[in-house]
Amino acid sequence: MKMTVLTLFPEMFEGLFSHSILHQAVEKGIVEYNVVNFRSYSTDRHQRVDDYPYGGGGGMVLTPQPLFDAVDDLRQKSEKKPKVILLCPQGETYSQKKAEELAEEEELILLCGHYEGYDERIREHLADEEISIGDYVLTGGEIGAMVVADSVTRLLSGALGNDQSAVTDSFSTGLLEYPHYTRPSDFRGMKVPDVLLSGHHANIESWRRRESLRRTWERRPDLLQNISLTEKEKDLLSSWNYPTK
Amino acid sequence: MKMTVLTLFPEMFEGLFSHSILHQAVEKGIVEYNVVNFRSYSTDRHQRVDDYPYGGGGGMVLTPQPLFDAVDDLRQKSEKKPKVILLCPQGETYSQKKAEELAEEEELILLCGHYEGYDERIREHLADEEISIGDYVLTGGEIGAMVVADSVTRLLSGALGNDQSAVTDSFSTGLLEYPHYTRPSDFRGMKVPDVLLSGHHANIESWRRRESLRRTWERRPDLLQNISLTEKEKDLLSSWNYPTK
Repeated sequence: MKMTVLTLFPEMFEGLFSHSILHQAVEKGIVEYNVVNFRSYSTDRHQRVDDYPYGGGGGMVLTPQPLFDAVDDLRQKSEKKPKVILLCPQGETYSQKKAEELAEEEELILLCGHYEGYDERIREHLADEEISIGDYVLTGGEIGAMVVADSVTRLLSGALGNDQSAVTDSFSTGLLEYPHYTRPSDFRGMKVPDVLLSGHHANIESWRRRESLRRTWERRPDLLQNISLTEKEKDLLSSWNYPTK
Repeated sequence: MKMTVLTLFPEMFEGLFSHSILHQAVEKGIVEYNVVNFRSYSTDRHQRVDDYPYGGGGGMVLTPQPLFDAVDDLRQKSEKKPKVILLCPQGETYSQKKAEELAEEEELILLCGHYEGYDERIREHLADEEISIGDYVLTGGEIGAMVVADSVTRLLSGALGNDQSAVTDSFSTGLLEYPHYTRPSDFRGMKVPDVLLSGHHANIESWRRRESLRRTWERRPDLLQNISLTEKEKDLLSSWNYPTK
């Protein structure tokens, strides 16, 4: 998998790509990151990439030329068919399902805007997909690109040390994760539940599934709409007054 | 406003805090960022911060001691009452409304987990709030902390050059933003809508409000539930077959 980020702030990605699991994935040859400042593609004599909006109003708008030329150039150099993704608040809300889809691609180009916004022609004619990482406003698309890079990379085969980890995480199972505990068993008087110290594996599994379900019911009941539950789980939810058909 | 990030990967924040609008906000004295590696608080002889989960299973779990001691220390040093926020998938889904709430605080402490998860006692007894930036899995809480730092900082008075910008953005008005266009008016045959070149301000305003509404209706009809619409807007939505009461 190759990911190229087009940004005006390439330095923002140094920390992400040179540390942690993403760096390990590069070392293992699983992924290649490429960060390009698209200002270098500007044909303006002052290398400008933004201009005033037609129709007036505050803020500056990214002009189409540098991003179109940058993507053209990347496409020409690539033997694959890169998917071009625009990070923007108007995009489809990002989800684990979308991360799984993108993890199947061979190459991604992530476009990060800044300033007031993108010229609409970038959105309509250059981007294959538009992604929003959530309903909040950020100063640019860079942190969104980091979300995509991180969430997709960890799904690539071999990226995580323990292949099981990617599967049991929150959202991967459709439920929030059960509570974790580690040593000490008593920390400042706060204790680990007895069942986890019992060594009784069936009880532990049952407790975890139940707590995962309970936490989802308490915090994110919307997630319960999207998964199939066992009869036993439905009974549990009924006993907590959750309307199950 | 002061924000302290507790993380095992402080280098990840260098790019964010030393560039762009966040750096400018620091220079202007509007915000102060502090990134602390909580490994330095570990009392373990090898400075370990994680351990195996009670009850078995893959992955490592963050132990309570280093984070509790780090937060104790920060609280003692601070004259304010810092709000402690845990970034985690089980948290409340982050929103612009939450960003606005947090922008009212004097001090935030952002806890970034890694590995399989946090010891539950951190969640229950140390964090004031838990925030999830979206329904996807990341390798750690760092990118979530960046989302909070960025979205909150830009709301602080004086952080953006143009105070109007923060108000007309997507999610701030409850609707997605209208399309932006800048020069050239014809780029590779793709043209800017005539109305924006007309100089007729009332028509431009009307077009923008309409396109903002249309885009929201097409892409994020769920957002329309949360705002009050004028009669004219309701009529428009009806003509597009959106069920308005």
